Amino acid sequence: MGRFCPATSDCIVLIKMHTQPVSAPKTIALIGAGAVGLCLAAAFVRAGWQVVVCGARVRFSQIEETEGANTHTYPIRHAVTPADIGLCDAAILAVKSYQTQDVSAWLRAFNRASATILVAQNGLGQKECVATYAPQAHILPAIVYFNAQRSAPGKVTLKRIGTQDLCVPDDATAQYFADVLQKGNMRVGITADITTALWLKLLANITANPITTLTGRRTGVMRGPAIQATARQIMVEAVKVGQAEGAKLTAQHVEDILLWLQTIPAESITSMLQDRQAGRELEYKALTGYVVKAAEKHGIDVPLNHLILSLLSSIHPADS
Amino acid sequence: MGRFCPATSDCIVLIKMHTQPVSAPKTIALIGAGAVGLCLAAAFVRAGWQVVVCGARVRFSQIEETEGANTHTYPIRHAVTPADIGLCDAAILAVKSYQTQDVSAWLRAFNRASATILVAQNGLGQKECVATYAPQAHILPAIVYFNAQRSAPGKVTLKRIGTQDLCVPDDATAQYFADVLQKGNMRVGITADITTALWLKLLANITANPITTLTGRRTGVMRGPAIQATARQIMVEAVKVGQAEGAKLTAQHVEDILLWLQTIPAESITSMLQDRQAGRELEYKALTGYVVKAAEKHGIDVPLNHLILSLLSSIHPADS
Repeated sequence: MGRFCPATSDCIVLIKMHTQPVSAPKTIALIGAGAVGLCLAAAFVRAGWQVVVCGARVRFSQIEETEGANTHTYPIRHAVTPADIGLCDAAILAVKSYQTQDVSAWLRAFNRASATILVAQNGLGQKECVATYAPQAHILPAIVYFNAQRSAPGKVTLKRIGTQDLCVPDDATAQYFADVLQKGNMRVGITADITTALWLKLLANITANPITTLTGRRTGVMRGPAIQATARQIMVEAVKVGQAEGAKLTAQHVEDILLWLQTIPAESITSMLQDRQAGRELEYKALTGYVVKAAEKHGIDVPLNHLILSLLSSIHPADS
Repeated sequence: MGRFCPATSDCIVLIKMHTQPVSAPKTIALIGAGAVGLCLAAAFVRAGWQVVVCGARVRFSQIEETEGANTHTYPIRHAVTPADIGLCDAAILAVKSYQTQDVSAWLRAFNRASATILVAQNGLGQKECVATYAPQAHILPAIVYFNAQRSAPGKVTLKRIGTQDLCVPDDATAQYFADVLQKGNMRVGITADITTALWLKLLANITANPITTLTGRRTGVMRGPAIQATARQIMVEAVKVGQAEGAKLTAQHVEDILLWLQTIPAESITSMLQDRQAGRELEYKALTGYVVKAAEKHGIDVPLNHLILSLLSSIHPADS
């Protein structure tokens, strides 16, 4: 099936044209100015929005995004406390999944029915977690397929993979934000089956992230035959768990993702390896940890994912 | 059963006293002046032998060995070519198993019936490999239980673990060298079942070495409950292979080794992690690689060891 994006097959790339001028500029809050957050915020600026960065530890004056040979800058402003956000009904949540609690004060600022929180986090279980802080907000999961690396505060390199950059569920709010992001030059798909789409991304994440992190290698490592066999077995275990959780996963998906992993530029660095190298905490609980936990719930045996989890949870990045 | 040394239960710690004076000093050749080789050579010097270091890349003037608070020095001389060795009927082979071919010229210098090569290498399959270069020599496997770390050429720190430092087979030549090493303050056991003793050491090596290397942690990592569960499963797979290979392994051995691994000082660094940190090739082929290869021969499924092998073989230490 050639190049494959780990989103469900009913995921449609939007090609709608946007000809209406934007009236008063809208504002989106960026909670988590990491690599993914910066790329999404840049897309909003390209679509005519203003960006307010929430509680950045290191202030930066603008977003500087490099894609291929091109570098562009995008204006932002900073909010030190939620009161500084101003008139704003949308937020991007792009902190690591284990940091969601740390930004709960910012999430609570969007706890109203008119607000949307675009959750661009790896792994599963995020919507439920965010809902504990902002139960009234519309929580919109966004599955991220692009690779991004932050080299300094505000400074990011974007690498697109396959045919889609993002995937969102099939509802009116998602359609609205998909249109904005599409206008901001993101290739956004919409799926009627977000559970399956999330599990497909999870399958890619529970292989590429741990394997690159444990071996210390860039994503080109996924092209080796021995590693492909390992990645296949890790996914085959998880497919059973995903099916038990309602995802419509098949054996063919595993093969498709193996091919897709090889389309990632060989010199890319996964977010988890970036974290290990930088001495940061690793984001494994929402990935392999989620699979192992769900497997236990359903009484499914996942020995390889158990082994991976024990290794990842034993890494102390600061010591390595 | 408390503290356990991963040698067969019929392994006896020698307590024979040595009262006879050594006449003319004998010479032993050291092929591989790494951490283990230096500690063994130092023991020979303590027993009244002379040591000739073969083909050292960096010349050092003496062995400086530290154990606990005590540091002692031991004289050595260097041989640049096999012709420099002089009158000598014994050699220690202590290079990494993947380097044996590189030192084949030195091994060939001992290819006579009067010569003994003490093989102090990790893993299995070593005797067969050495025999291809010195088929006439007596090849004596020595299982090493102590931990050693080399900080500079000739400079080593020795940490003893459990109740034995070495184990050798039960034959006259082994008994002779066991006596010498015992005189040199090594605690040497003799076993009638070297196959089982080798597999017991292998079980410890295929857990502690990969787990510390992949997590970047010191041996204290083996004390975590999740890692213990992983180590147990890695060994349970390998026990079936060892049994098929003639080792008298039992489920109890796995539990004993899990306990023994926890007696290793928490701050020790396994040889494989030392290699990864120093950007050297990793010695996995004679360890996990041996288990996987033997498993294939016997048609035994070892998915966890397969996974570990794919990760270890994908590490490029120089890049990590």
